[in-house]
Amino acid sequence: MRQAGRSLPEYRKIREGVTMLESCSRPDLVIEITLQPVRRYGVDAAILFSDIVVPLRAVGVGVDIKPGVGPVLDHPIRTRDDLGVLRALEPDDVPYIDQAVRALVDELGETPLIGFAGAPFTLASYLVEGGPSRTHERTKALMCSEPDLWHDLLARIAVISAAFLRVQVLAGARAVQLFDSWAGALSARDYETYVLPHSATVLSAVGDLGVPRIHFGVGTSELLGLMGSAGADVVGVDWRLPLDEAARRVPGKAVQGNLDPAILGADWRVVEGEVRRVVADGRAAPGHVFNLGHGVLPSTDPDVLARVVETIHAGIL
Amino acid sequence: MRQAGRSLPEYRKIREGVTMLESCSRPDLVIEITLQPVRRYGVDAAILFSDIVVPLRAVGVGVDIKPGVGPVLDHPIRTRDDLGVLRALEPDDVPYIDQAVRALVDELGETPLIGFAGAPFTLASYLVEGGPSRTHERTKALMCSEPDLWHDLLARIAVISAAFLRVQVLAGARAVQLFDSWAGALSARDYETYVLPHSATVLSAVGDLGVPRIHFGVGTSELLGLMGSAGADVVGVDWRLPLDEAARRVPGKAVQGNLDPAILGADWRVVEGEVRRVVADGRAAPGHVFNLGHGVLPSTDPDVLARVVETIHAGIL
Repeated sequence: MRQAGRSLPEYRKIREGVTMLESCSRPDLVIEITLQPVRRYGVDAAILFSDIVVPLRAVGVGVDIKPGVGPVLDHPIRTRDDLGVLRALEPDDVPYIDQAVRALVDELGETPLIGFAGAPFTLASYLVEGGPSRTHERTKALMCSEPDLWHDLLARIAVISAAFLRVQVLAGARAVQLFDSWAGALSARDYETYVLPHSATVLSAVGDLGVPRIHFGVGTSELLGLMGSAGADVVGVDWRLPLDEAARRVPGKAVQGNLDPAILGADWRVVEGEVRRVVADGRAAPGHVFNLGHGVLPSTDPDVLARVVETIHAGIL
Repeated sequence: MRQAGRSLPEYRKIREGVTMLESCSRPDLVIEITLQPVRRYGVDAAILFSDIVVPLRAVGVGVDIKPGVGPVLDHPIRTRDDLGVLRALEPDDVPYIDQAVRALVDELGETPLIGFAGAPFTLASYLVEGGPSRTHERTKALMCSEPDLWHDLLARIAVISAAFLRVQVLAGARAVQLFDSWAGALSARDYETYVLPHSATVLSAVGDLGVPRIHFGVGTSELLGLMGSAGADVVGVDWRLPLDEAARRVPGKAVQGNLDPAILGADWRVVEGEVRRVVADGRAAPGHVFNLGHGVLPSTDPDVLARVVETIHAGIL
């Protein structure tokens, strides 16, 4: 999980006095922060340290990440006139990503790097609301009241997210993950009508590059089949649905996730039991990427994560 | 929905300079605020204005509701020694509830009053975390690491919630609703093991009183069958799952909810279409209480809610 850094002292140290968006645009910091969890835990893959708003900012969207709040827009996007700022992303807009990925791929050797982008719905919610929202009320109102404008907005975001992923894969990333953190706020009907076609655009735009595509969301038990059908090879599953049931909902796809990040604060015997259960349940799918169901919580003891990785690597499950 | 008040100017006016907990313990305010949406919208039932922490405070738990934050505990409950404060609730602990309900029942006449209590899991999360939490990490860690302590904690909360509901029904409430706002944070396995028995205790404790029992949660599509099995006559459904599918998951039970509160900000033709869809989907269940899938958002235009009620009452669906 990308957010693994927040619980690491070495991450908090390197971020001292550096804003989130600065840390995402300096290759030295992107490289170092991406490597930190690999060094500490010896995990089997790295995921690029970045933020879902990085490509939006790269095309000129006025956005900042406020500590303790999240992304905040200078001007929310709510009308057709507002769409102009969402031009296509060119590789030259994100030279620091190309540079960081190439250096990381060299450094990581056999360990694959996973590329990363935000999905159109989640990005649209930030753009329309002007910041984080638990209700997505302006977003949903726009989506249903002005479907043409909505589809144009999501199509533009899809072009940007796709280009952001292509830059990473062309620089050497060996898989991609599309994060739709908030898709779980939608009914399956609305997801299928208003969101799925655009997420499918992003995933199909990297289809020719031959890398596995992971499609991730939270609270998406009712959407898993649709998320798989968007062109994903692997579907992320949060802690609410066991992987054997998830596997039934995404036939032929690999699954990822399911360990509840909140459970890492429990006694080790509880954590170990859950690790074994997740591995056992995952056998029902044709492929299983062991992972948490959502990001590591800042309060997580890094030593517990180290034991989780050791347990998996010991292979005695 | 209980939170209907937040969007009403008459509610905001009457709450000026009055804290949330004061407004819940003054019969004049409980009566007036409970009646406001009935007066304005002519809805078919009233729900008691209260807060899920009212019965906790009534037995002596140090808790306040901070504006913009939510319930905050003086001392979180995390050890066996902390349990002592959770003594049984006696009717004399909440004379203002008895008084308000009796007056409301008189005033409402044919319109039934729905009683209200928080469910053990949601209350336990406030008690253990010490305040609102999106991750419920301390709660889940305690639940899994110290199951005996957890079950003792939830059993005590269940006794309090049950007594709080009994006071309301004995004073004339003609239905009850048990709110488990955060049950959706749990997997079905954990819900069944750690929560369901205690919610069932609450609902069965009012079983002899012969009133319909509504069991409500959000993000609970995977838990609906279990929530129905807890002794509910009606199961609440948020906006993520259509009522026809929900009805299949709770055979023999009535369903309630499903209109997305966020959609009330869309154009009227969108809202009207959703109202018709919810009514049509609800026909799949043996009973259907038309309602929102969650609380009214503060930004909602009261005139839109009035049109929704008119549309339902026009009966042309």
